[in-house]
Amino acid sequence: IGGHIQFFKLPNINVTASYTDSSDDETSPRDKAQVNTHGSSDFCVKNIKQAEFGRREIEIAEQDMSALISLRKRAQGEKPLAGAKIVGCTHITAQTAVLIETLVALGAQCRWTACNIYSTQNEVAAALAETGVPVFAWKGESEDDFWWCIDRCVNTEGWQANMILDDGGDLTHWVYKKYPSVFKKVRGIVEESVTGVHRLYQLSKAGKLCVPAMNVNDSVTKQKFDNLYCCRESILDGLKRTTDIMFGGKQVVVCGYGEVGKGCCTALKALGAIVCITEIDPICALQACMDGFRVVKLSEVIRQMDVVITCTGNKNVVTREQLDRMKNGCIVCNMGHSNTEIDVASLRSPELTWERVRSQVDHIIWPDGKRVVLLAEGRLLNLSCSTVPTFVLSITATTQALALIELFNAPEGRYKQDVYLLPKKMDEYVASLHLPNFDAHLTELSDEQAKYMGLNKNGPFKPNYYR
Amino acid sequence: IGGHIQFFKLPNINVTASYTDSSDDETSPRDKAQVNTHGSSDFCVKNIKQAEFGRREIEIAEQDMSALISLRKRAQGEKPLAGAKIVGCTHITAQTAVLIETLVALGAQCRWTACNIYSTQNEVAAALAETGVPVFAWKGESEDDFWWCIDRCVNTEGWQANMILDDGGDLTHWVYKKYPSVFKKVRGIVEESVTGVHRLYQLSKAGKLCVPAMNVNDSVTKQKFDNLYCCRESILDGLKRTTDIMFGGKQVVVCGYGEVGKGCCTALKALGAIVCITEIDPICALQACMDGFRVVKLSEVIRQMDVVITCTGNKNVVTREQLDRMKNGCIVCNMGHSNTEIDVASLRSPELTWERVRSQVDHIIWPDGKRVVLLAEGRLLNLSCSTVPTFVLSITATTQALALIELFNAPEGRYKQDVYLLPKKMDEYVASLHLPNFDAHLTELSDEQAKYMGLNKNGPFKPNYYR
Amino acid sequence: IGGHIQFFKLPNINVTASYTDSSDDETSPRDKAQVNTHGSSDFCVKNIKQAEFGRREIEIAEQDMSALISLRKRAQGEKPLAGAKIVGCTHITAQTAVLIETLVALGAQCRWTACNIYSTQNEVAAALAETGVPVFAWKGESEDDFWWCIDRCVNTEGWQANMILDDGGDLTHWVYKKYPSVFKKVRGIVEESVTGVHRLYQLSKAGKLCVPAMNVNDSVTKQKFDNLYCCRESILDGLKRTTDIMFGGKQVVVCGYGEVGKGCCTALKALGAIVCITEIDPICALQACMDGFRVVKLSEVIRQMDVVITCTGNKNVVTREQLDRMKNGCIVCNMGHSNTEIDVASLRSPELTWERVRSQVDHIIWPDGKRVVLLAEGRLLNLSCSTVPTFVLSITATTQALALIELFNAPEGRYKQDVYLLPKKMDEYVASLHLPNFDAHLTELSDEQAKYMGLNKNGPFKPNYYR
Amino acid sequence: IGGHIQFFKLPNINVTASYTDSSDDETSPRDKAQVNTHGSSDFCVKNIKQAEFGRREIEIAEQDMSALISLRKRAQGEKPLAGAKIVGCTHITAQTAVLIETLVALGAQCRWTACNIYSTQNEVAAALAETGVPVFAWKGESEDDFWWCIDRCVNTEGWQANMILDDGGDLTHWVYKKYPSVFKKVRGIVEESVTGVHRLYQLSKAGKLCVPAMNVNDSVTKQKFDNLYCCRESILDGLKRTTDIMFGGKQVVVCGYGEVGKGCCTALKALGAIVCITEIDPICALQACMDGFRVVKLSEVIRQMDVVITCTGNKNVVTREQLDRMKNGCIVCNMGHSNTEIDVASLRSPELTWERVRSQVDHIIWPDGKRVVLLAEGRLLNLSCSTVPTFVLSITATTQALALIELFNAPEGRYKQDVYLLPKKMDEYVASLHLPNFDAHLTELSDEQAKYMGLNKNGPFKPNYYR
Repeated sequence: IGGHIQFFKLPNINVTASYTDSSDDETSPRDKAQVNTHGSSDFCVKNIKQAEFGRREIEIAEQDMSALISLRKRAQGEKPLAGAKIVGCTHITAQTAVLIETLVALGAQCRWTACNIYSTQNEVAAALAETGVPVFAWKGESEDDFWWCIDRCVNTEGWQANMILDDGGDLTHWVYKKYPSVFKKVRGIVEESVTGVHRLYQLSKAGKLCVPAMNVNDSVTKQKFDNLYCCRESILDGLKRTTDIMFGGKQVVVCGYGEVGKGCCTALKALGAIVCITEIDPICALQACMDGFRVVKLSEVIRQMDVVITCTGNKNVVTREQLDRMKNGCIVCNMGHSNTEIDVASLRSPELTWERVRSQVDHIIWPDGKRVVLLAEGRLLNLSCSTVPTFVLSITATTQALALIELFNAPEGRYKQDVYLLPKKMDEYVASLHLPNFDAHLTELSDEQAKYMGLNKNGPFKPNYYR
Repeated sequence: IGGHIQFFKLPNINVTASYTDSSDDETSPRDKAQVNTHGSSDFCVKNIKQAEFGRREIEIAEQDMSALISLRKRAQGEKPLAGAKIVGCTHITAQTAVLIETLVALGAQCRWTACNIYSTQNEVAAALAETGVPVFAWKGESEDDFWWCIDRCVNTEGWQANMILDDGGDLTHWVYKKYPSVFKKVRGIVEESVTGVHRLYQLSKAGKLCVPAMNVNDSVTKQKFDNLYCCRESILDGLKRTTDIMFGGKQVVVCGYGEVGKGCCTALKALGAIVCITEIDPICALQACMDGFRVVKLSEVIRQMDVVITCTGNKNVVTREQLDRMKNGCIVCNMGHSNTEIDVASLRSPELTWERVRSQVDHIIWPDGKRVVLLAEGRLLNLSCSTVPTFVLSITATTQALALIELFNAPEGRYKQDVYLLPKKMDEYVASLHLPNFDAHLTELSDEQAKYMGLNKNGPFKPNYYR
Repeated sequence: IGGHIQFFKLPNINVTASYTDSSDDETSPRDKAQVNTHGSSDFCVKNIKQAEFGRREIEIAEQDMSALISLRKRAQGEKPLAGAKIVGCTHITAQTAVLIETLVALGAQCRWTACNIYSTQNEVAAALAETGVPVFAWKGESEDDFWWCIDRCVNTEGWQANMILDDGGDLTHWVYKKYPSVFKKVRGIVEESVTGVHRLYQLSKAGKLCVPAMNVNDSVTKQKFDNLYCCRESILDGLKRTTDIMFGGKQVVVCGYGEVGKGCCTALKALGAIVCITEIDPICALQACMDGFRVVKLSEVIRQMDVVITCTGNKNVVTREQLDRMKNGCIVCNMGHSNTEIDVASLRSPELTWERVRSQVDHIIWPDGKRVVLLAEGRLLNLSCSTVPTFVLSITATTQALALIELFNAPEGRYKQDVYLLPKKMDEYVASLHLPNFDAHLTELSDEQAKYMGLNKNGPFKPNYYR
Repeated sequence: IGGHIQFFKLPNINVTASYTDSSDDETSPRDKAQVNTHGSSDFCVKNIKQAEFGRREIEIAEQDMSALISLRKRAQGEKPLAGAKIVGCTHITAQTAVLIETLVALGAQCRWTACNIYSTQNEVAAALAETGVPVFAWKGESEDDFWWCIDRCVNTEGWQANMILDDGGDLTHWVYKKYPSVFKKVRGIVEESVTGVHRLYQLSKAGKLCVPAMNVNDSVTKQKFDNLYCCRESILDGLKRTTDIMFGGKQVVVCGYGEVGKGCCTALKALGAIVCITEIDPICALQACMDGFRVVKLSEVIRQMDVVITCTGNKNVVTREQLDRMKNGCIVCNMGHSNTEIDVASLRSPELTWERVRSQVDHIIWPDGKRVVLLAEGRLLNLSCSTVPTFVLSITATTQALALIELFNAPEGRYKQDVYLLPKKMDEYVASLHLPNFDAHLTELSDEQAKYMGLNKNGPFKPNYYR
């Protein structure tokens, strides 16, 4: 079951407090007969009566997703998705609802299911079902429920999908396995996650990809926001919410000076932490030097550190031996891709005591009383302990919408049975749709200037390899 | 009932989740008979059985309060508080417990009560009571309970206080009113809050202050941490926990460029917000210019702002007319001293709808649908929506401990019946006790250098007016 | 002969290039007969014919000194200096000329001489003389010339000074010694330098100060600009112009974390240097920690440093032993008050070779070939190797003008025979006159707000001790 | 005649002061008979007697070019350039001398000439000639001299080049035109400049490139240093040296937010300027938003700006109409590639007065007296008005040396008759050679980690497209 940074953490701690309580209702949604106010029962959610609360959440989300709203307005006249039948499998949150309702406004029919058994906001699912979108999802599905929901989405009488929007590849996998004939009508797959994209490239390599697929995970805009800009904020947020640490004067080592590491270092330094980094790549190391960070080996500094953060994508970056040498109270956490960066397994040994002091916070206690503070058991800190701003999700959702429009409307032959990156020009379009949020005013090239630069006035402005 | 920034917010949202639930027990502590394991019943807390949990919290707090622990060690041999009988009235939290247990370790006897009816951590109170400190406090006291607790602290047979540690002035007020004769034996009052200090100065002016009092609120170290350094972190934390805002590119106006405003501006700018400020004082305004902030009048920019933050200490800094002109989604909050900076009262009018969307977050909805996001109903944001790092509390607590030692041991005549600031040298000592946390190594003057500078090698190093 | 940061460095390298060459004229100005175009010969400058060139320099300076120009306009109607006869002794530069011509525009008569034998801009002196201000100064005076010029300023028939503007105390000293009776008519002395202010306090202490004196050196606005803001820029400028160093990644230790040190650290860190500091004062040390700088002893880090900067005001902060341990290529310089911070004397020993590689840059070469790069022979770096922005000089000059107006117009009895700081309100006024340069818009208190804060709407807004 | 950022500006103002004066010698070097102390006369420089002074400059440069020195040591045993006969055409400066002497130390024979008629440091050329490197170059060559020198380098009896190191393409052009047969023996061309690389790509496209060529201009390390890191420092340096501006509070607009623009913005913001940017590319514009800069159109803000900086590579970015609307005293300069960014030509019109106030600084005066301050007549500011740190030149020189080694030693067939980028691994090697300057310690992958990441332990660590 897929799942990744962007959506997983949405049902955050603060929010849940204000959600209607449904803990008293133990009946499985599959066993309930529910009808929306329009008489439809083609959906399966926790409680259709929570629709109003969910609607408000969607409205709040819309305020920070004006790019999608603007897309609705610009493209609404021509209904670029008229005729599109989209089956979708994503986290179901207020932000996804804004995406789905945008697709509908642009002419599409949608059926939707959840890509994660925990992440569904029940009230939002209810609100979507109430407006007539067939949604099959609730928070706390069993694995059997999960596949049942996907199946109900795909396998319905008198309706056959011609577009797939997937996040993690499970929906695509199910269709491949159970309903391969569906692909005869499908014009394309839009995939959002690292995992799902990886699966598509494997299919393509194996010659089994039978429709075009768009990799929206690697668009420049999305990458910058998911990594540099988002981590710059979430490292602070994640550390604060879990430990109430004061950043000023803290000695921090950040392992890895890629985009995630750069984001973490910038933020921590700005708030008065004294940051050093480790790197294996001399080019990144030299950048760290120029940016004012000492480049060290972890073992050289481990005894002095107050905080250790991994962002390498590698394994065993923090070893048991290094954990043994940390000082009392040292905080250890992971902002990288995998949960193997810190050798957490090595800490599950009889001589060490684990004490859960808060949600997502464990004290590992050595025989001599030394405590190391481990966050989120070494899993992604910002996935587990902070939230993702709606603005970042807006960039992802807009990219998804544009990819759907592009694939659905592309003339025969533009896309083969392969995996494509979003064209540079559309990447730039996603960015431009978000500029009004900042009241940013773009300069336009004059004809003379465009000619001088050898550029089209409307872009793309940079080569494809530009990052 | 007094209360102020530093402690009020301690029982924070995250923490409470992990506390033992006591909601099933509706009996008032005043009606319960409880005995600790040593057979004493001279205390009144919610549930003495929670002592173990509270002890763990205290131990965790100790890790970030090494200055107090170090003070215990340095001064323990001589027991500088031997003979001191301290009656205290403060927030009762793990951090206060570390202070109380330090006072005890230095030879004092203590009786303690809470300065706020909501802020007591029941488990910590239980842990203190278990070790034999007579504590009278629980979370959710009535006003009657509040004064009953104070009275039980002061009025006990066979024990009479000779030192007072107060936070807000209520304890001092009670003693003045009910047991004025106690002051015959009292060697001094240590007061921590703005309100309490203000009351003491009034007493002094009126010639009614009959013992020396130490104003620890205005020590340099404490002020810098409470304002500049603490706000630099808590503005980010408070905004994130309530609104999950992305800071990058946000247009922010900060009203007031004093220490609090400087802290807010530094942090927001560092995370990519575009910050401008308002000021009435040309010297502070010129500093803002030099620091790279545009100085504007609020009305000039109010339409464009994403976030409005007040830190002036003044009233009606944000008026209803300005609230009317804000754009949809604008966030308004207060980091200043008083809750009158934003004219919240003017928003309680029939044409506007209030919608509570999360704890501490209200949407005020205008007839045209525009929403303004008001945080903490205009009260202090960092008091309501973020936590204070233990390190900051450590500085306050250490200052309190040193003030008690100074007043208790001062030779006859050093202090008159007046309000005193902490001597510069002790302020420097508080700072020096916290340097080991940062592994900071102070340079010592050589004899020759001290002579050249006209300084004592052990300080004080700056004149009293130095900030 | 006095001299200090602000003006000393004005005749900077870049500027001089464009000056008319007068090296061919070896005649002493004292031996020349010169007459300006109005027929007056009451002046003594290098060459009256350079007046036009000097006028242009004054006009350029006026562009960045709009505060003085604005003061001319605001106060011109009432001529607040009508009747004032000011004798002045300062650096004679384009910026001083703007001050002098402002004083004249406000009604004063002025006679002027130079406070430093090297710093006079001959062309500017000529321009002043041409417009009728009796100026006695040229670049390259002998000491005898220096006192002769002062005497010519003071001792003139039919004119007796009633105000003194001094910079360094030499003029005041001369009047005390030679013409004590002048003080009968003098309403006040305005003194600008640390040295001069020190002398005045000594006179006052000895009961010998017979007129009021205004210490403008310690006004808040001036101090902030001379130290924090000015050093933030000049440390970079001074290092670049002398060594062309790349800041990124350089290891720098700054000795002293007062205002000057804070300015240096901020700038260097911002450009990617890795900065640590040394301190004797625990409060300043704690601030450095919070601002993200490691606090070390010099000896602990001296081997690793690329740059060593002193800003303590103390002596022997960098010792010969530490110089011996520096690595090859280490740059050593001083931004503090005295030239004794680095023990330069110890480097003048036979085993070391000095090599002058550029103006203000010496390589000290150890027997093993190691080179240490010493800037300005340990004198003030920003005095010797960078320039001071006109804007900073504008603040000083405006403060001087206001102090003269205040002392000249003060009602009998407001000022005694003592040394005074500029009243807070006037300090604020200086700041306010400079805000238009930044298009900064000050907010005005409403009556209600002023009352709430207990302030006068026009200031002062802060207590006198506020920094 | 080619020429570009890196070397042009080397003979900077400060340095020249300390150079031996040769202005008295008007004889053309071509007409002089000179012999070095070894009896050779195979060179043509200004004055062979200046060799000693030049040697010292080279020694000073060596201190900041330890990467090359280290390369000498690592590769010296094997003499990887044994047999190489290199003809070079670059700026001739102390830094180039370190490169040339490194090539010789690695076994090469070299003949050298200058790529620019103004940039030769005569003393350095003398020092090279003295040690036996045939150098043909002096400061102030005529165009005829220029080509004569190139010819003397290439066309010599008994010696035929087998490698070409070019900077600007003039040498390559000459060989193509005059001695095409030389290419039969040449194993490769290493080209350093944008212009030269452009010519090579054109040759390649036209099928006329008859040997492999290495484009070292676009290596990642070099690009980052030439643009982001170098401009971050040189924008401050260039503005200060020309105008003595105070950065604090200045309103600045930077046109273009590519790497150069990012460097400028970072530095100016850090020193307290208020910076906004213009952009045509929405992705760069969005990055500017996230980094805290307002994105505007130039016309919207032009009236308020204190400084206007162009870094777009485009033409007419600042038009005459915008120059007309600037405020008095506005500073205009260019940090981009071309000198057409500011429409300087439009300012050469009769109604405007030009006044040269300093070297590289013109005041353009409007009829109403308004002055605009134009720097370097719109040419590159950092080329004209600041210096390039030796460290940046070290990166370029090391890249050139490695490219020569690679091409000279590459097995038959690795490189065709095409233009190549430096292999990623060698780019990383250049970076790693510079890490010791910062005492940076690289982490090495364990076997297990390398396998997990799918990387070779020695790199390359990133894909070729990684920036």
